[in-house]
Amino acid sequence: MSDSSVNIEQLTINTIRTLSIDAIQKANSGHPGMPMGMAPIAYALFYKAMKHNPLNPEWINRDRFVLSAGHGSMLLYSVLHLAGYNISLEDIKNFRQWESKTPGHPEIDHSLGIETTTGPLGQGFATAVGMAIARDYLAALFNKDDIKLIDHGIWGICSDGDLMEGISHEAASLAGHLKLNKLVFFYDDNQITIDGRTDICYSDDVAKRFESYGWQVLSINDVNDIVLVERIIKMVRSNYSKPTLIITKTHIGYGSPNKQDKSSSHGAPLGEEEVKLTKRNLGMPEDKTFYVPDEVYDRFKKIIVCGKEAEDMWNEKVNEYKTKYPNDYSLFESVMSYKFNNNWLNHLPKFDNFDEKIATRVASGKILNAAAIDIPALIGGSADLNESNMTEIKSSKSFSAENRIGRNIHFGIREHTMGAILNGMAIYGGVIPFGATFLIFSDYMRPAIRLAALMKQKVIYIFTHDSIGLGEDGPTHQPIEQLASLRAMPNLIVLRPADANETIEAWKYALKHTGGPVALILTRQKLPVIDRKKYAVCEGVKNGAYIIKDTDGKPDLILLASGSEVSLCIDAAEALQSEGVKTRVVNFVSWEVFEKQTEEYKNSVLPKEVKARLSVEMGVSQGWSKYVGDYGDSLSIEKFGASAPDSVLFKQYGFTKENIIFLARKILNS
Amino acid sequence: MSDSSVNIEQLTINTIRTLSIDAIQKANSGHPGMPMGMAPIAYALFYKAMKHNPLNPEWINRDRFVLSAGHGSMLLYSVLHLAGYNISLEDIKNFRQWESKTPGHPEIDHSLGIETTTGPLGQGFATAVGMAIARDYLAALFNKDDIKLIDHGIWGICSDGDLMEGISHEAASLAGHLKLNKLVFFYDDNQITIDGRTDICYSDDVAKRFESYGWQVLSINDVNDIVLVERIIKMVRSNYSKPTLIITKTHIGYGSPNKQDKSSSHGAPLGEEEVKLTKRNLGMPEDKTFYVPDEVYDRFKKIIVCGKEAEDMWNEKVNEYKTKYPNDYSLFESVMSYKFNNNWLNHLPKFDNFDEKIATRVASGKILNAAAIDIPALIGGSADLNESNMTEIKSSKSFSAENRIGRNIHFGIREHTMGAILNGMAIYGGVIPFGATFLIFSDYMRPAIRLAALMKQKVIYIFTHDSIGLGEDGPTHQPIEQLASLRAMPNLIVLRPADANETIEAWKYALKHTGGPVALILTRQKLPVIDRKKYAVCEGVKNGAYIIKDTDGKPDLILLASGSEVSLCIDAAEALQSEGVKTRVVNFVSWEVFEKQTEEYKNSVLPKEVKARLSVEMGVSQGWSKYVGDYGDSLSIEKFGASAPDSVLFKQYGFTKENIIFLARKILNS
Repeated sequence: MSDSSVNIEQLTINTIRTLSIDAIQKANSGHPGMPMGMAPIAYALFYKAMKHNPLNPEWINRDRFVLSAGHGSMLLYSVLHLAGYNISLEDIKNFRQWESKTPGHPEIDHSLGIETTTGPLGQGFATAVGMAIARDYLAALFNKDDIKLIDHGIWGICSDGDLMEGISHEAASLAGHLKLNKLVFFYDDNQITIDGRTDICYSDDVAKRFESYGWQVLSINDVNDIVLVERIIKMVRSNYSKPTLIITKTHIGYGSPNKQDKSSSHGAPLGEEEVKLTKRNLGMPEDKTFYVPDEVYDRFKKIIVCGKEAEDMWNEKVNEYKTKYPNDYSLFESVMSYKFNNNWLNHLPKFDNFDEKIATRVASGKILNAAAIDIPALIGGSADLNESNMTEIKSSKSFSAENRIGRNIHFGIREHTMGAILNGMAIYGGVIPFGATFLIFSDYMRPAIRLAALMKQKVIYIFTHDSIGLGEDGPTHQPIEQLASLRAMPNLIVLRPADANETIEAWKYALKHTGGPVALILTRQKLPVIDRKKYAVCEGVKNGAYIIKDTDGKPDLILLASGSEVSLCIDAAEALQSEGVKTRVVNFVSWEVFEKQTEEYKNSVLPKEVKARLSVEMGVSQGWSKYVGDYGDSLSIEKFGASAPDSVLFKQYGFTKENIIFLARKILNS
Repeated sequence: MSDSSVNIEQLTINTIRTLSIDAIQKANSGHPGMPMGMAPIAYALFYKAMKHNPLNPEWINRDRFVLSAGHGSMLLYSVLHLAGYNISLEDIKNFRQWESKTPGHPEIDHSLGIETTTGPLGQGFATAVGMAIARDYLAALFNKDDIKLIDHGIWGICSDGDLMEGISHEAASLAGHLKLNKLVFFYDDNQITIDGRTDICYSDDVAKRFESYGWQVLSINDVNDIVLVERIIKMVRSNYSKPTLIITKTHIGYGSPNKQDKSSSHGAPLGEEEVKLTKRNLGMPEDKTFYVPDEVYDRFKKIIVCGKEAEDMWNEKVNEYKTKYPNDYSLFESVMSYKFNNNWLNHLPKFDNFDEKIATRVASGKILNAAAIDIPALIGGSADLNESNMTEIKSSKSFSAENRIGRNIHFGIREHTMGAILNGMAIYGGVIPFGATFLIFSDYMRPAIRLAALMKQKVIYIFTHDSIGLGEDGPTHQPIEQLASLRAMPNLIVLRPADANETIEAWKYALKHTGGPVALILTRQKLPVIDRKKYAVCEGVKNGAYIIKDTDGKPDLILLASGSEVSLCIDAAEALQSEGVKTRVVNFVSWEVFEKQTEEYKNSVLPKEVKARLSVEMGVSQGWSKYVGDYGDSLSIEKFGASAPDSVLFKQYGFTKENIIFLARKILNS
């Protein structure tokens, strides 16, 4: 390598650094330390390692890059700008401003080359594992010996924080077990954390830890030795049979005379003076801001050319594939564009035996299995509760190191990483990922659910054992506040069907819905199948809430319920009706979906003039006031559950026909 | 060891097994596999390893036992029964029944020898780490070279599930870093998980993994070799300088001819027939249920004698200590009984400069530091956000491997384990633990917060950066639904003070409150200090909600707000008042505390006849309907946040005086 090539490389790396610190200084907010330390890796990735086309960041077969340490967002924006992505110098100057392309933490936008939203630590790392699973599934589904449609790497940068978070353990353990290859993370080992040196709280032997998971572990002792970095990247490629962690020794705030290796460079601008000193120290013009030397721009032009060539070559392969494997190609196209038909509805068992009770989780299992036949994009599993969540796709096998075509993912007892993996799969595209656990353990995966909602990803959660109805396992397993806390989350649709047939409707909704995740809330215990000849048809589910049992004329009373409580309310309503109380039952499958309806519809279901209302739900009442109003009441559970058979609990917690009638009369009399 | 002693040991172990399977069979629900496999360890712990007094399970210096794999509860109940704890055969027969002492998963009850509530996997493991921290802190505080008041082990059993969960990584990493000694976990390595063999999803080299954390790792290749078990326990004692994991090869469902080593023995009764076959196989009378041979009861009488002797000896030491170190002893007594005075209030800075703004997190930091002087029980820290959460106790040092007297715990970027560690510390007693992170990351620790609430533990959370007011870090860091989701949790008190002086009141409340955890919700951004000469005094905080600004006569309008929105509402109210709208502002510091007040008080704050109400809070409106009523409205945020300076966000999201006035007028005109 000639001196001039070293010089231009150094200049490019320093330009990443100065762009980053200038943007942070201008915003007067941000995290300069990491971009300064890791600039050589960003350069090496975008210039040397990755196959990507800046002119088409959405090219399916591109290498992915995940900045798990999302606070180092300026590193990403700087290198995307230099590499010719649609992020201008103006955008960089707008770092952290309202509606800019360059928010504080990276926010998913494939058109810009931002693969996923990061910031909450550990999430990006686990999301990348999900991308690798989706990639390998689709590759196994479509690649041929002679033509590989899907064949690329997934690269990332993670920090101490990412690796301290528990989710990193779950994700790394599963990635190692599954031998996910072409998955490479650089660990920014800068020894500094917000509170000081990492050794105040952290002394893991990270190499040993990742080896224990079955990862390949490499190390770079001096990140600024770009020749070494390049050599290591080549080494990664030579052993691509497992995931790789590259422990990269860096200096946080590299180049800053007074803040390098100090936590003060982590999360605040360097300060005008220190920015100047840093530029001087790095040999950059200290009087210029947002300065990009022409030769740096010039250098990256090669990437644009190479990227286009790579995509052109791939397109040729696609054309060849189209000719040789027309059926597969047609399936590929439909999968990648989420096109599927509703034939699966014909494969469903009929739920029309009103004498037999069936748990909604059991119905869900049958529905999933029917849907899976026609929708190859459906892939997922459970956090080690397959038999309880009823999530096994019986027509397929396990997704494993040996069998990438399997559609049953065994996430293990790793709910949090399951959530993030589902996000990575959904982001990747071509798959509709689902994941299951007990409703109570949605708490374990909440940060990942939130990211699915924030990123508007199509993810389906199957949360079973949805109330004290699970019985003997007791309060640690009985959801009380989970319905409320899931409903509180923007962009998440929560559906709690009342019987087997509504579970079909809920699944239809979930499969059709775009713009965010959907949670199906299902019972462990058996429920009656509601006789739809007697009560309203279950298509009403699509409106979120609907009148399932009505009365002639203006109702005296409205009972509002969801899930397993609906049948109970119908029973109570029948009894009240026979005693002359005109009672309507509103089946509240989903608050969020109901809120999307017209005011007219909403008023027709809950007429303002009917003030006597009682909501019945085995969870906290929080939020029900909105629907029961000032004169209504809620039969709810405001404390934790208990261990006992479900029949005992229903009685002890007041979820009986008699108590509903009692409370209804109380409201009517007040 | 004589044959007869081996025989009686085997008989005892088998009695643990048969008691467990009988109870599960009778309940027709439960998890037999683990008790059958791990019975030898339970026996070895309670008979050989642990220092404990069944007649006084609350003896301070007892060894603790944590069953992290809580689904194996019958293992614990069986051995507690045999060892003479207050769990009768009748209690065992009532396994999993309403209000029994033997619920489905262990529920904390120190009087029974149940040290903590477990079931949600990984929690017990991390909770034990918290117990060890509390133990070591108190030991450092009180032990003398010649007299050790606190000197005991903490033992536990964990499962595959515990070790797959991310929290196990966080906890083990911190425990290894802190070199927590006399902390010993047996890992029930039975190779079986609910969905089948663990190797479908799990291939960690667990020994290597724990060595990477700095743990001592031992192994037992045959759990039924009780001589070997005993030898290993002795080995643990010989290297007590770090935490220890003992990898114990076991057979799930040991003894069951048809279900041993199968996941079918994990979570369901064996079945009447298989119970009989198992008893026959184990050489136990198959026609007897709940059978305990007299010699088994006799054998454990020794434990009662030894336990009493151990406690008597300790009491002698305590008496000696009392004489030699009267001041320390007096402190010991007051700490262990949570007695402390409010002298610290005198050390507080005055927040009475109304021209200067101060963030409630900053006020909290000063308050904490004042309180820490007089309350040595206060110990805690932040998940690597000390400087942001303002949680450093400046008069103390870091709690570390070298300095157990330090009161600043560096939890690292490990929110979830921080939550569980706080639980373990609170359970241990003698300390008032606090932990801090950004409010958004309360999501990461939610399962642990839930357990604190379920166990009614005195834990204080300091959650700062409580709204879009944190600005540029953007939507991944801005809480939207977190207030609602925390409020949804039973037994958790959420306090969101409106200014520096209310932060004092909130801290007073938190320190005084018993029966559950308290979350302090604090701002990043600076807030005005409310002029209490002009507005109501802040003692009203103790009522949860109070009238901070009132009007003469019946109000036309009530504005309801919490935290940073209170000052904004006061400004809007003043403007409305000057325009002739009689406006009351209710400062809603805590829903839960307000709900505890009398109906009379509640009606005085929110008179039924005042229907025009507007709540103003920077989060989802879920739940506010209850307070604003049918004719009120909520200024809230029903979508995610965005990255921009806070002033821009406040405007974009409508949190301005002008918009509040606009919305108030809309309500008044409707």
